[in-house]
Amino acid sequence: MKTALVIGTGLIGTSVALALAGRGIQVHLTDHDPAQARTAAARGAGTDQLPEGPVDLVVVAVPPAHVAGTLAKAIGGGLARAYLDVASVKGGPRRELEELGCDLSGYLGTHPMAGRERSGPLAATADLFEGRPWVLTPTPATDTEVLNIALELVALCRAVPVVMDADAHDRAVALVSHTPQLLSSMVAARLKEADETAVRLCGQGIRDVTRIAASDPRMWIDILSANPGPVADVLAAVAADLDETVRALRALDSADEDQRIGGAADIEDVLRRGNAGRSRVPGKHGAAPTAYESVTVLIGDQPGELARIFADAGRAGVNVEDVRIEHATGQQAGLIQLMVEPSAAAGLIATLRDQGWAVRQ
Amino acid sequence: MKTALVIGTGLIGTSVALALAGRGIQVHLTDHDPAQARTAAARGAGTDQLPEGPVDLVVVAVPPAHVAGTLAKAIGGGLARAYLDVASVKGGPRRELEELGCDLSGYLGTHPMAGRERSGPLAATADLFEGRPWVLTPTPATDTEVLNIALELVALCRAVPVVMDADAHDRAVALVSHTPQLLSSMVAARLKEADETAVRLCGQGIRDVTRIAASDPRMWIDILSANPGPVADVLAAVAADLDETVRALRALDSADEDQRIGGAADIEDVLRRGNAGRSRVPGKHGAAPTAYESVTVLIGDQPGELARIFADAGRAGVNVEDVRIEHATGQQAGLIQLMVEPSAAAGLIATLRDQGWAVRQ
Repeated sequence: MKTALVIGTGLIGTSVALALAGRGIQVHLTDHDPAQARTAAARGAGTDQLPEGPVDLVVVAVPPAHVAGTLAKAIGGGLARAYLDVASVKGGPRRELEELGCDLSGYLGTHPMAGRERSGPLAATADLFEGRPWVLTPTPATDTEVLNIALELVALCRAVPVVMDADAHDRAVALVSHTPQLLSSMVAARLKEADETAVRLCGQGIRDVTRIAASDPRMWIDILSANPGPVADVLAAVAADLDETVRALRALDSADEDQRIGGAADIEDVLRRGNAGRSRVPGKHGAAPTAYESVTVLIGDQPGELARIFADAGRAGVNVEDVRIEHATGQQAGLIQLMVEPSAAAGLIATLRDQGWAVRQ
Repeated sequence: MKTALVIGTGLIGTSVALALAGRGIQVHLTDHDPAQARTAAARGAGTDQLPEGPVDLVVVAVPPAHVAGTLAKAIGGGLARAYLDVASVKGGPRRELEELGCDLSGYLGTHPMAGRERSGPLAATADLFEGRPWVLTPTPATDTEVLNIALELVALCRAVPVVMDADAHDRAVALVSHTPQLLSSMVAARLKEADETAVRLCGQGIRDVTRIAASDPRMWIDILSANPGPVADVLAAVAADLDETVRALRALDSADEDQRIGGAADIEDVLRRGNAGRSRVPGKHGAAPTAYESVTVLIGDQPGELARIFADAGRAGVNVEDVRIEHATGQQAGLIQLMVEPSAAAGLIATLRDQGWAVRQ
C-alpha cells in the first residue's frame, strides 16, 4: 500500500491517517466540513488535496448512518482498489450497500475497538489502535487482495486483527460494549435524586460500575441507533433476570420460609452466573483477571510516594501488572493495590516491608 | 474506653479487635466457633478468655440474621456500658430488638463501609477502616455516653463517622452498594454463554462494570436477605428504565420516523440522567471524578517502567491522583493514564516528553 484516501477526519479517521502517514503512506484527507480536513492535515495526517487518480485504499470514517451512502459514491467513482469502513456496527451498512446494488468485492467492513472520551481531529493520535482488537468482516465475495490490504492497514496501526461475521460482530458489541454502557447509565441515573449522605457512602464498587456513565450521550445515540435490535435482545435478557431478582427479593421478605428459601436460591443463581461470566472477561494480555494476586499497601498523598513504591517494586524485579489506587473521603492517605503474578507476590511483600511500607497480607 | 468484648471474630470483628488492641485497649474475643476466636487471639487481636466483669464496649460482629439475638443476650447479661453492632443493615436488627423488648438506651447500630474479597480472622487487618465512612444510627433513646464510646471506636479505627437514620442507611446501601452488585452480576451473566470471539472484544468499559461480579455469592445472599425491601425498590426503578429502553430501542428499529425520533429521545434521557448521577459519585478525597485531567503515556511491559514514569512525574513535583493501566490482548506494551490536577497536566506532559515518554495530548 502506497496511497490512501481517508473520508471523514474525526477521531478515528484522523488517527488512521496519522498512523499511515507516520509510516510513509501518502494520505489524502476529505471531510464534509473542509475545516476538519484542514485541521487533520495541519496535524501531519496527510494532505487535504484530493488524489489525481485512484488510490490503493479508501477508508470511510463517517457516522454509521452515512457509511453506505459514502461508500456507494466512492465505489461508483472508482476511487480505489479497496474500500473499508471503520464504523462501530457492521450488519446494517452492508445490507444498505447490497440494496444500493453496489459491487461489494472491493469492500470490507471493519471495526477498530478503540476510542477515547474526546472526539474530532485534535483528539486523534497515531497510537490509538496499538494492541487493540480490529474486527474484519469479510464475506465469500470479498477479494483476497482487499482482505490483505486491510490486514496491512491493521498491522500499520499496530492493532490485532480479529475476523468475524458482520452480524456476529454486531451481537458481540451489543453484549460487551453497548449493554454495559446502558446499564452503567441506569445504575448512575438512580443517584441523580439521591440524598447527599447516601452519595457519601459510595465506594469503589459503584465507582467502577458507573465510570462509563460519564460518556457522551450524542455519540452513544449514533451507535445505538445503528444497532438497536441486538442491543434490545441482550437488554431484554437482562430485564428477565432483573424481574426475576425483584421477585426473589420480595420472596426474601415473605413470612413463608419456603418462599424465602426459593428467593435465596434464585438470587444465588444470578450471582453464580455473574461469577462465571466475569471469569471470562479478559484482563491485560488477554489473561483472566483472577490470574493476578493483589498486594495492598498504605500510601501517603505526597508527590513521590508512588514513584517510591514503584521503584521499590522494580528493585524486587517484580512487574506490576495493574494498579488500583483507593483514597477515602476526606483523608490524605490511601491504599494502593498492586496486581502481580502470584509467584511474585511473596517477594514483593517482603521487599516492600523491608523498605518500611505498611503492606496488608 | 479501656476494655472491649468482640463477639464474632470474622473479618470485621477481628479487624476492629486488631485496631483496638493495637491502641492499648484490653480486648476479649469470642465466637460461636472457639477455633476462630483462638485464631484471632493468635494474630494479636486480644485474648479468647471471657472478661470477669462488665467491659466498656461490646461489639457484635455476627451475620445480620444473628445480630438481634446476640445483642439481646449480651444486653440481658449486663456485659457492658455500651453495645454496638457492625452489620451491613440497620433497620431490621433494630426492629427485632424492639420486638424482643430490650432496653435500647445502651445500643447503637453502626456500619463501617469497609470490606475485602477474603473473609475470616486471617484476612483481618488493623487498617481495614482507615479513612472509610463508618455509619452511626443513633435514635433519641440512645445514651450520649454510648454515642461517644462509638465515636471513640471510630476514631481509634481511623474511620470517618457519618450519622444517619437506620432506615435511610438501608436505603442508601441498597442504592450505592447492593444494586450495583446485582446489576454487575447480571451484565456479567450475559457473558457466561457468549462466543469466545465476542469475549475477546471486551474492553475497559465492561471490565470495570463487571469487576464486582466476582464477589462471593454466599456473603451477598446474607447481605441481601437482611435488606430485601429497599434493594427490590431500587431494582424495580432500574427495571422500569430498562423496559423503557428496550421499547425505545425497538422504536429505533421502526420504519416510522416519528417512532425513531421518540426512541432516540428516550435513550438520550436515560444517558443524560446517567451523566448527572455519575457526576455525583465522589472520587478520591470526595472530589468529583471530573476534577482531574488524564495524561496518557505509552509504556513498555518491563519491570521498572512504572517506577521510571512515577519517578519522572515526581521530579515534576506532580502528585498523581489516580492511575489506570490498560494493556491490550496479546501485546507487550500498554497505556497508562495518570490522573492529575488540571493545573499540573501541562507541566507533567512537558516533563515526561523531555524524558522521552510518548505522551498523548
